[in-house]
Amino acid sequence: MQKRIEVGVLGATGMVGQHFVKFLQGHPWFALTWAGASDRSAGKKYSDATSWRLDGVMPPEAAGLTVQECKPGNAPKLLFSAMDASVATEIERAFAEAGHVVVSNSKNHRMEPDVPLLVPEINPDHLKLIPLQQRNRGWKGKIATNPNCSTVALTLGLAPLKPFGITRIICTTMQAISGAGYPGVPSMDINANVIPFIGGEEEKMQQETQKILGEMTDGRVEPLAAKVSAHCNRVPVVDGHMVAVSVELALKPTEAEVRAAFDTYTGLPQQRNLPSAPPRPVIYMPEQDRPQPRRDAARERGMTVFVGRLRPCPALDWKFMALGHNTVRGAAGAAVLNAELMYTEGLLD
Amino acid sequence: MQKRIEVGVLGATGMVGQHFVKFLQGHPWFALTWAGASDRSAGKKYSDATSWRLDGVMPPEAAGLTVQECKPGNAPKLLFSAMDASVATEIERAFAEAGHVVVSNSKNHRMEPDVPLLVPEINPDHLKLIPLQQRNRGWKGKIATNPNCSTVALTLGLAPLKPFGITRIICTTMQAISGAGYPGVPSMDINANVIPFIGGEEEKMQQETQKILGEMTDGRVEPLAAKVSAHCNRVPVVDGHMVAVSVELALKPTEAEVRAAFDTYTGLPQQRNLPSAPPRPVIYMPEQDRPQPRRDAARERGMTVFVGRLRPCPALDWKFMALGHNTVRGAAGAAVLNAELMYTEGLLD
Amino acid sequence: MQKRIEVGVLGATGMVGQHFVKFLQGHPWFALTWAGASDRSAGKKYSDATSWRLDGVMPPEAAGLTVQECKPGNAPKLLFSAMDASVATEIERAFAEAGHVVVSNSKNHRMEPDVPLLVPEINPDHLKLIPLQQRNRGWKGKIATNPNCSTVALTLGLAPLKPFGITRIICTTMQAISGAGYPGVPSMDINANVIPFIGGEEEKMQQETQKILGEMTDGRVEPLAAKVSAHCNRVPVVDGHMVAVSVELALKPTEAEVRAAFDTYTGLPQQRNLPSAPPRPVIYMPEQDRPQPRRDAARERGMTVFVGRLRPCPALDWKFMALGHNTVRGAAGAAVLNAELMYTEGLLD
Amino acid sequence: MQKRIEVGVLGATGMVGQHFVKFLQGHPWFALTWAGASDRSAGKKYSDATSWRLDGVMPPEAAGLTVQECKPGNAPKLLFSAMDASVATEIERAFAEAGHVVVSNSKNHRMEPDVPLLVPEINPDHLKLIPLQQRNRGWKGKIATNPNCSTVALTLGLAPLKPFGITRIICTTMQAISGAGYPGVPSMDINANVIPFIGGEEEKMQQETQKILGEMTDGRVEPLAAKVSAHCNRVPVVDGHMVAVSVELALKPTEAEVRAAFDTYTGLPQQRNLPSAPPRPVIYMPEQDRPQPRRDAARERGMTVFVGRLRPCPALDWKFMALGHNTVRGAAGAAVLNAELMYTEGLLD
Repeated sequence: MQKRIEVGVLGATGMVGQHFVKFLQGHPWFALTWAGASDRSAGKKYSDATSWRLDGVMPPEAAGLTVQECKPGNAPKLLFSAMDASVATEIERAFAEAGHVVVSNSKNHRMEPDVPLLVPEINPDHLKLIPLQQRNRGWKGKIATNPNCSTVALTLGLAPLKPFGITRIICTTMQAISGAGYPGVPSMDINANVIPFIGGEEEKMQQETQKILGEMTDGRVEPLAAKVSAHCNRVPVVDGHMVAVSVELALKPTEAEVRAAFDTYTGLPQQRNLPSAPPRPVIYMPEQDRPQPRRDAARERGMTVFVGRLRPCPALDWKFMALGHNTVRGAAGAAVLNAELMYTEGLLD
Repeated sequence: MQKRIEVGVLGATGMVGQHFVKFLQGHPWFALTWAGASDRSAGKKYSDATSWRLDGVMPPEAAGLTVQECKPGNAPKLLFSAMDASVATEIERAFAEAGHVVVSNSKNHRMEPDVPLLVPEINPDHLKLIPLQQRNRGWKGKIATNPNCSTVALTLGLAPLKPFGITRIICTTMQAISGAGYPGVPSMDINANVIPFIGGEEEKMQQETQKILGEMTDGRVEPLAAKVSAHCNRVPVVDGHMVAVSVELALKPTEAEVRAAFDTYTGLPQQRNLPSAPPRPVIYMPEQDRPQPRRDAARERGMTVFVGRLRPCPALDWKFMALGHNTVRGAAGAAVLNAELMYTEGLLD
Repeated sequence: MQKRIEVGVLGATGMVGQHFVKFLQGHPWFALTWAGASDRSAGKKYSDATSWRLDGVMPPEAAGLTVQECKPGNAPKLLFSAMDASVATEIERAFAEAGHVVVSNSKNHRMEPDVPLLVPEINPDHLKLIPLQQRNRGWKGKIATNPNCSTVALTLGLAPLKPFGITRIICTTMQAISGAGYPGVPSMDINANVIPFIGGEEEKMQQETQKILGEMTDGRVEPLAAKVSAHCNRVPVVDGHMVAVSVELALKPTEAEVRAAFDTYTGLPQQRNLPSAPPRPVIYMPEQDRPQPRRDAARERGMTVFVGRLRPCPALDWKFMALGHNTVRGAAGAAVLNAELMYTEGLLD
Repeated sequence: MQKRIEVGVLGATGMVGQHFVKFLQGHPWFALTWAGASDRSAGKKYSDATSWRLDGVMPPEAAGLTVQECKPGNAPKLLFSAMDASVATEIERAFAEAGHVVVSNSKNHRMEPDVPLLVPEINPDHLKLIPLQQRNRGWKGKIATNPNCSTVALTLGLAPLKPFGITRIICTTMQAISGAGYPGVPSMDINANVIPFIGGEEEKMQQETQKILGEMTDGRVEPLAAKVSAHCNRVPVVDGHMVAVSVELALKPTEAEVRAAFDTYTGLPQQRNLPSAPPRPVIYMPEQDRPQPRRDAARERGMTVFVGRLRPCPALDWKFMALGHNTVRGAAGAAVLNAELMYTEGLLD
């Protein structure tokens, strides 16, 4: 690649936006040149408009950008959306209509039938929805989305088992506080505590998982015909969502077969050597007490889902633990990997 | 009761022993007059032999006791056992053989076919194993046990649903650090982290649940014929084990029926107004984000199991959250309630 | 006392207000019959207007109250103020002007020269400011205040040493998250972290300490002529403010003299046996690693300040640790004890 | 450098040893080729002898080493000592006597008059003690030490102010759990708590600070003639020791002068561009609530001490906050930087 592609972030001053700004630092293909935010921030320097909440300090290349209104106009063609759900629907559509490629982390369009909900290792062929989307909506641009942060850990943990015929999934999450943004969860609620509720999260995990693991058939995605049940909990952990998974598999694989499936799993991002693709999207940890969020989530630049503790489930077939970095593989990194995949598919034009 | 019954604690200087000492403070029926511990401590004052690890300070009535060796002799008839599993088998048997009533929190004898594994609200009739036990073993004394700390929260949460025909259970625990004793879990392992493994815990929850919810038939306990699967995790919480439960019920009750079952559940300890019995053994909390360990576990003196978040499970039938105080209802309080039940059954003689 | 005195709480639905509601439960002298809050809440039932954030559930006697506007009218004579600082000045004055006794936890009037800033064990004679206050302002009512939550731990820890001539104080706090109210400190800021800044806290500790330890002279309070320096930090602890204190003492007492001063310290609330007075306002813990917030702050109903680790300070004279329960002795309990003192002084008429 | 210098670690399997192994990964001058540990581990592969406790997984280059006994013989000349204090004295001496260069993190020899206690930016000239040490003891080898983890943050925070004449220091630490090794602090002690005691820590901070900031005079170190008082506390933070400092300065500098001293501070390691030297040893953060351990300690590879919150101290002259990464700048990184300095001084021969 000769010259890096200019990219922008919609909602750049918020917590998710900051994760995009951080993740894009030094990206070999994409150069952050545009930061969009609310009218209140527009016109200010990014460093003045933003209370930097992430570890360390603000990347200097972002600090000097002038924040723009979130309206098509001077924005680059490729935009990452970190918009809040309350405003994402209209703003993302406006940009797509105006010809932009919107690669969104927002939940708003994920479940629409003509919008790909991508995990590039699992369902890159769902990008075939894009022409349909453009036809349906008369857009020159397009929208692609990545899943909810907890869904990514679940679906990447399950994807290696898809060939065995997944028919039933029961999972319980233990989710990090960074998943709730800023100010997010009050410390009085979560210090030395567990909150057994995250609004809308269980529904998202259940529906998104079926769509992501579903098949492109006749120009549409046929959801996976598995029963999916999620229990979602917040725990006092900074980064990394843990998912305890029990799964029923039609083909009744042996432990060795399941383990081999984890150990050999790979995908298109690895084949194409995409810049944000981890060498291995799923790594099985054989230690009896791993993965752990504080010790493992940030490894492999936060882009690998770690699984472990594979053992028989007396109630379904197998059970195991999956861990994903919620603000990287579950948000900014997911979207950037989506854009990298789309680039190699010629979909950024 | 005219005069309180003298009781002792086996393993009184350890963490579980300290919980017994604390829970027995001011008990209307039982007076702590004897503290047994290892040879190393024997002969010392309890206050000298014990590093008090619980909140606040050591109860003054215990402080002055002289620690005894854990050998039958001068011990009172009723003994609570807080022995470590590595030594409990032989010591508890020696006391039972010598005519003592051993009410044990240790795991060692729980699964033996002639030893009752009691939750007094659920299976008080399992005390019928005692005569068999005495006959089998030629003991004048006896052993009764209470479940593992996480099992109590699960079984009391499930007991109201037993009439609906429980056929399958999948649960995930988020367990407090106090469950691991002292020094227990190193802070380097659990600070801002989750440990997805507790040695032996899943097996205990699975087996004990089947025994506790089983039926006395022909002088033995027929385990509940339900498939039970547990995922056990440690989280950075001080007290209170959370259990996320999905359950399959043969009779397919409605939400109102399940809810009514929770709301009306009661048992023999309540009927008999046992001193340690909570007014209600199970309380359903209607708030969408409860129960929570830090806010709820210690309510009702730690003897009630709180349930909440009842909702349909897309993969089984219903799902909900249960919370129990692990060192009270899950250990010392459980054993003391067992002894109270046994007293009213004439089994302390 | 035949009949309990009716009392109200200004700002009853907020976090501090909830602490008042909880602390007043079952009070032998005072009956909570009135709850004031913002216009938005007025007219609603307290249980509908309030998101209960404290451990356990809302006291039933408060739940049924109808929330009132914070305007004089139907309010009882004695009012506890839990008003936010942004509105406390005018509202408290309006009630005092209308003849009410306002016992306030707000910072607004603390440093005014004719307003007593009370710690009943230390400076009950500062109540002599009240007639002056009424004269100055033409009020039939009156305002009395209690200190900032961290100031209470410091001043009660220092009060026993006042006879030795305090000339210099350097202290560092480690303050609990409950001190910041609700939602208060975002968990992303404080989980596994320390925040070395609490807005306005150092100034409050420095000034309030001088006033509280000052002398009534010629109808005014002459502040203690000691240099006071505070470093204030937030730590991930739920309740209990720790204060590490180094102090310079003119009379150069021995360790035994300092220790004896801690061990014998008592005050008017103890002499008069006020309902909220702890048996001992200051308790020295001899263990080398105490006091600790999680283990000690809530003992003695949260009304005692625990001190420990007395040892020589190589840079001043002595150093030690003090701990106070910030929402009890540092807020609601402090104000209620003030009102009890005022009752025995005939100042509630 | 043509070929890397072979180095070993004494006590390589413990927690501090693991920090050395991790920090030495990819070092441009030093190659880890030797790992010493107790007899129990000797002969095993490092990966078999070691339970890896740090984030991520064990560096592969260490995993294959065969653990050796801690006896001179086949060890490389340069050895980093991570020995436990209970055995360090004799083992370190044996190696020094046998001609090895022992660069130790252990406390045992720090305060001996002929052993340099180094912070390379502050007192590189204390290396002049080495010839004296060799003469005194008849050693061909030598021992050099780095300070206690909390002392490093304090002394680097103070070093810029030394020209102003430091006469009195009062500091309070809030120290991370990683400072206590593994298993270290039980979670039952520190979860949502503060422990106001760390054995021996206050004495170490007080004495070491005077030695480090002292002057080489007539072949010996004249300790800084300042009064130093430390209050040491453990807080539930993973990495990074915070130190709240009040300091008295003879020359009474202005705020601008103090600030400039922080902003311009540099040292020999920076001049010589040592591989582990941070670009700036001390960085002042102007934000009102920084530095913070979770957000800042690991920046600059953990080798910079961050200071902030400079403001007048009403009791001494100035107060501020200092933060150092305790396992990097306070342990392994400190020792490696010492060895790098010694290399450039020709002291590794």
